[in-house]
Amino acid sequence: MTTRDHCLALDAADALAPLRDQFELPGGTIYLDGNSLGVLPRATAARVQQVVRDEWGRGLITSWNAAGWITLPQRVGDKIARLVGAGAGEVVVADSTSANLFKVLGAALAIQRAEAPQRDRIVSERGNFPTDLYIAESLARQHGAELVLVDDDADIAARLDARCAVLMLTQVDYKSGRVHDMAALTRAAHDAGALAVWDLAHSAGALPVDLNGAAADFAVGCGYKYLNGGPGAPAFVWVHPRHVDRFWQPLAGWIGHAAPFEFVPGYRPAPGIARYLVGTPPILSLAALECGVDTVLAADALGGIAALRAKSLALTRLFVELVESRCTGHGLQLVTPRDDALRGSQVSWRRAEGGYAIVQALIARGVVGDFRAPDVLRFGFAPLYTRFVDVFDAVEQLRQVLDSGQWREPRFHQRAAVT
Amino acid sequence: MTTRDHCLALDAADALAPLRDQFELPGGTIYLDGNSLGVLPRATAARVQQVVRDEWGRGLITSWNAAGWITLPQRVGDKIARLVGAGAGEVVVADSTSANLFKVLGAALAIQRAEAPQRDRIVSERGNFPTDLYIAESLARQHGAELVLVDDDADIAARLDARCAVLMLTQVDYKSGRVHDMAALTRAAHDAGALAVWDLAHSAGALPVDLNGAAADFAVGCGYKYLNGGPGAPAFVWVHPRHVDRFWQPLAGWIGHAAPFEFVPGYRPAPGIARYLVGTPPILSLAALECGVDTVLAADALGGIAALRAKSLALTRLFVELVESRCTGHGLQLVTPRDDALRGSQVSWRRAEGGYAIVQALIARGVVGDFRAPDVLRFGFAPLYTRFVDVFDAVEQLRQVLDSGQWREPRFHQRAAVT
Repeated sequence: MTTRDHCLALDAADALAPLRDQFELPGGTIYLDGNSLGVLPRATAARVQQVVRDEWGRGLITSWNAAGWITLPQRVGDKIARLVGAGAGEVVVADSTSANLFKVLGAALAIQRAEAPQRDRIVSERGNFPTDLYIAESLARQHGAELVLVDDDADIAARLDARCAVLMLTQVDYKSGRVHDMAALTRAAHDAGALAVWDLAHSAGALPVDLNGAAADFAVGCGYKYLNGGPGAPAFVWVHPRHVDRFWQPLAGWIGHAAPFEFVPGYRPAPGIARYLVGTPPILSLAALECGVDTVLAADALGGIAALRAKSLALTRLFVELVESRCTGHGLQLVTPRDDALRGSQVSWRRAEGGYAIVQALIARGVVGDFRAPDVLRFGFAPLYTRFVDVFDAVEQLRQVLDSGQWREPRFHQRAAVT
Repeated sequence: MTTRDHCLALDAADALAPLRDQFELPGGTIYLDGNSLGVLPRATAARVQQVVRDEWGRGLITSWNAAGWITLPQRVGDKIARLVGAGAGEVVVADSTSANLFKVLGAALAIQRAEAPQRDRIVSERGNFPTDLYIAESLARQHGAELVLVDDDADIAARLDARCAVLMLTQVDYKSGRVHDMAALTRAAHDAGALAVWDLAHSAGALPVDLNGAAADFAVGCGYKYLNGGPGAPAFVWVHPRHVDRFWQPLAGWIGHAAPFEFVPGYRPAPGIARYLVGTPPILSLAALECGVDTVLAADALGGIAALRAKSLALTRLFVELVESRCTGHGLQLVTPRDDALRGSQVSWRRAEGGYAIVQALIARGVVGDFRAPDVLRFGFAPLYTRFVDVFDAVEQLRQVLDSGQWREPRFHQRAAVT
């Protein structure tokens, strides 16, 4: 069995360990929820202050040009592009993941309606993150299409038929952490005449993504998870160059216009991905997101995303091993795949009862994971700042909470607004 | 003619003068562009630091509950509600003005399609801010409706006919500063069977707005102009209680769901205005916006919006008087109405040539206005922080730029990305 000393030795030998110094980590906390909200980069507070005090406070409107505000959605987008296998100029940062999905799923449906009107189905998974399903449901209603949800990965292939317009998937499942094979599923969708829309919320910054290599059609992703952009950071959107100029996305705001500062009536979309911009860019949030993305790009000199992925898998493998050896007999069922290729950067366990309270009891001990209704305990292992010894110590706390039955105390059962 | 000393005396007698101390104003600058980007409130930098360092950095995900992040869109919305004649619980802050307009104009069209399908026109003005026209154009395309644009205010009434579904107007024209009578036009729209959608971008925080008093149907507004929320601050949205539960807005994101943290497939919109929320709230931006809104609410003890409005009108009246008396013979034509009731918080001048260069020459002298293509020089007078002596000094600089012909220097003709 892996000992604490062995974990310390793993940290000592970890070439990525210095990347942890990029972050302000609260003392006394083992943070295993970077898949919900990434931690604060050390650079962010100063950079946001600079934007607030200097660029806004002193520069005022001149900063749109002088401080490069107007191109910030593209500048940060280009940085994210390097993390998801997209080219320069192919990604912009804008709005929320939900809003961006509305744009690209709408584009995919419109392209199919023009080319293959008999295709009237969006295929996705019942377990997909709800906002994706809600947006799809809304667009299905608008387009007279149908949202078809499968309950099991294995059923996807059967739904890629003559009626399938779009396959819409989240690459890494938010609850289980299961990873889809983006290249294979995109190929299967294309072979069936469908388009593939990918949500990279739990992928970007956590594992290698190759959108162009997979010849994917559309993608969106989140700025506040593994990209460490801060609470409610803006999201990103990518469209394959073969599609990008084909569709006028319906949120036809002025910043996506070909000439926003001509102030002319009559919408003409900007060429390329800029047409997916809508309103005035949120500068404070974009500046914070850029600092977060930079923390991931800092891994480039140490092996980049591939090295982060290797560490992430080692962390999650260790967590599974330690929980299964040290927390036996407590009814924790592993939900996350054991196969490295199928596992994202998190590990989830199902427990028939008490999941919420166990997570609360852990938080009270400084081990922050989260609970996903109805019965999943979820732990994320962001490789930029999580140590092997953190894994050991977290499991020890979990063992104590379970062995002692402490989680049964009423105080851990009080539900907060956000659980 | 009003002298500089008289302006100083006006400032000395101005009960609102202390409100200026709420802001970090750059030295050597007379800022007459608060209608484009409001200035930095003194409280903002510290508040944003607190959010970044304490709430995000230390609190991490617990701050969704502990720091009240999850209800911030409503909390700031309730504060804005007080400035626009809306009730508590009727306004939320979310997304951009463009995105919010997409939601409410879509709602208005859907309501009419259900109740009066023969109504297939959106009526607006050719001079409306372009993003409003682009969003309307997009929705018109989607709904098989037609966007009808009038060139003159006087033509609006004639277009309120049996085919008019929605009258969509910006209360204060971004270019001319002309104010529409919201109550009268809403009544006229209703009398004709149409719904009224109002954009309050240049109204909120600058003049009294009474959405419920006018019985308006829908409204959106901007956070970064007179509300001083910072560059690209999130926008707000209001729906009259009689409509709010009638429509499932199409950007059906998880934060607008009745139970976002149940993580269930199947969209059920939240009751009330919360259904107009989409993605995870942008916390940094919301915190900054709250500081900005607070600077306006600080006027409550000094007469509130009515007092701000009186000062704003005095400032713009003075500016017109001084320009017309001191800058004669230079071809400046007043675009903004002289009638107080018809004038927002800005003054615009048309000039056949050189408008852009004149604005640049003024900026080089520390007087910041802006230029709106093709020929308008625009000056905003935010009453929270603009002094009467600023008006005098700005006109003196304008006089010098014009009398000297300095604006003809080539350096003032170089166009930047954002003009």
